[in-house]
Amino acid sequence: MDEDLMVPLSPGEAGAARTVRRADNIHLQRIDVDKSARAAIKGQRAAVIWFTGLSGAGKSTLANCLERKLHASGRHTYLLDGDNVRHGLNSDLGFTEADRVENIRRVAEVSKLMVDAGLIVLTAFISPFRAERRYARQLLAEGEFIEVFVDVPLAIAEMRDPKGLYRKARSGKLPNFTGIDSPYEPPEAAEIVVRTGTQSLDESVAYLTSRLAAIGHHHSLALV
Amino acid sequence: MDEDLMVPLSPGEAGAARTVRRADNIHLQRIDVDKSARAAIKGQRAAVIWFTGLSGAGKSTLANCLERKLHASGRHTYLLDGDNVRHGLNSDLGFTEADRVENIRRVAEVSKLMVDAGLIVLTAFISPFRAERRYARQLLAEGEFIEVFVDVPLAIAEMRDPKGLYRKARSGKLPNFTGIDSPYEPPEAAEIVVRTGTQSLDESVAYLTSRLAAIGHHHSLALV
Repeated sequence: MDEDLMVPLSPGEAGAARTVRRADNIHLQRIDVDKSARAAIKGQRAAVIWFTGLSGAGKSTLANCLERKLHASGRHTYLLDGDNVRHGLNSDLGFTEADRVENIRRVAEVSKLMVDAGLIVLTAFISPFRAERRYARQLLAEGEFIEVFVDVPLAIAEMRDPKGLYRKARSGKLPNFTGIDSPYEPPEAAEIVVRTGTQSLDESVAYLTSRLAAIGHHHSLALV
Repeated sequence: MDEDLMVPLSPGEAGAARTVRRADNIHLQRIDVDKSARAAIKGQRAAVIWFTGLSGAGKSTLANCLERKLHASGRHTYLLDGDNVRHGLNSDLGFTEADRVENIRRVAEVSKLMVDAGLIVLTAFISPFRAERRYARQLLAEGEFIEVFVDVPLAIAEMRDPKGLYRKARSGKLPNFTGIDSPYEPPEAAEIVVRTGTQSLDESVAYLTSRLAAIGHHHSLALV
């Protein structure tokens, strides 16, 4: 067998800093079809477009609209959101702070795998903490992580309350709810800020699209 | 905002059977670009090709060879294996039985997401337990899960011992090692069985490819 394809990791790289039985029998193996080969097959450049903002800010709505546009342009996309992640991969997680952090960590790692697969990944999670968004960013190469802050005043998000979650949170039924009894840390240098409180959906999508097009690195996204 | 895109889940569907704070504020949202749309953009049909077998059986080698072939045919593939999963998404997991089961559960869930993204996913994990392979299978639609049993006698795998793991396990340094002090439950009805103990790598790949082509459902994979 072609086992010489397998290149042993040094013990340090293999995660020895963790616990004794973690990752110490893992070896790196050359994978012949790589990210650029996968993305090239579709004539696109892989990236993550990471939407962050309060519940009710419009992250999923914007991400859906953008995905439709990208798909119509022949781009190969995937949208990760609470629906497809919380019911499957992260169905073992609740909403304690630790579980919410682990939720986002896994989303970041899956995004990285999907970028490695050559996809344009859109993620739509509150992702309230700077540290977790920074973690997601540092998993990727320079320019591959585009943070989109869907900025809306809490009062407006709470007034919209499309899922009735703020009402529940105010009544104490949803502990650790972002904006109520858990903080939202606004991005300090998001690539794109969309203000859905003062713009219509159409205006927000148009602005988002134009900003994405303007981010030179992403001309290859061929957004119109 | 277009929040009427959001369709509330019934409480039962939303995971109420778990614990009180799990998944009870998740709502399904229509995602407009779906699996068939994503796969169609590449003229392929999404599926998981799930390699299972002892350490040293040749799973990763076969999966790599197959991926190269598929890629050369213009297919959009992704290979999940210990390297890209254990160092990232599952870096919090060790090798206790519980952690190994959780490792495979997450691989199954990520495979499902990637199939939803329209990819042909190859997975190369020992995945020793029937229950976990059954779990992976039932996440997918009929015909989307192709189990490839890389069948080799333990004696041969142990003789190859490409990573020195059997030696370590025999000396007691790797508890819960499949084939030594943890069982391998062979598939009872794998779609494909490749016997790498009695075939060369080229023969194994040729056989695997021809079997994949023969699985009528997968003619669209356009394997040669």
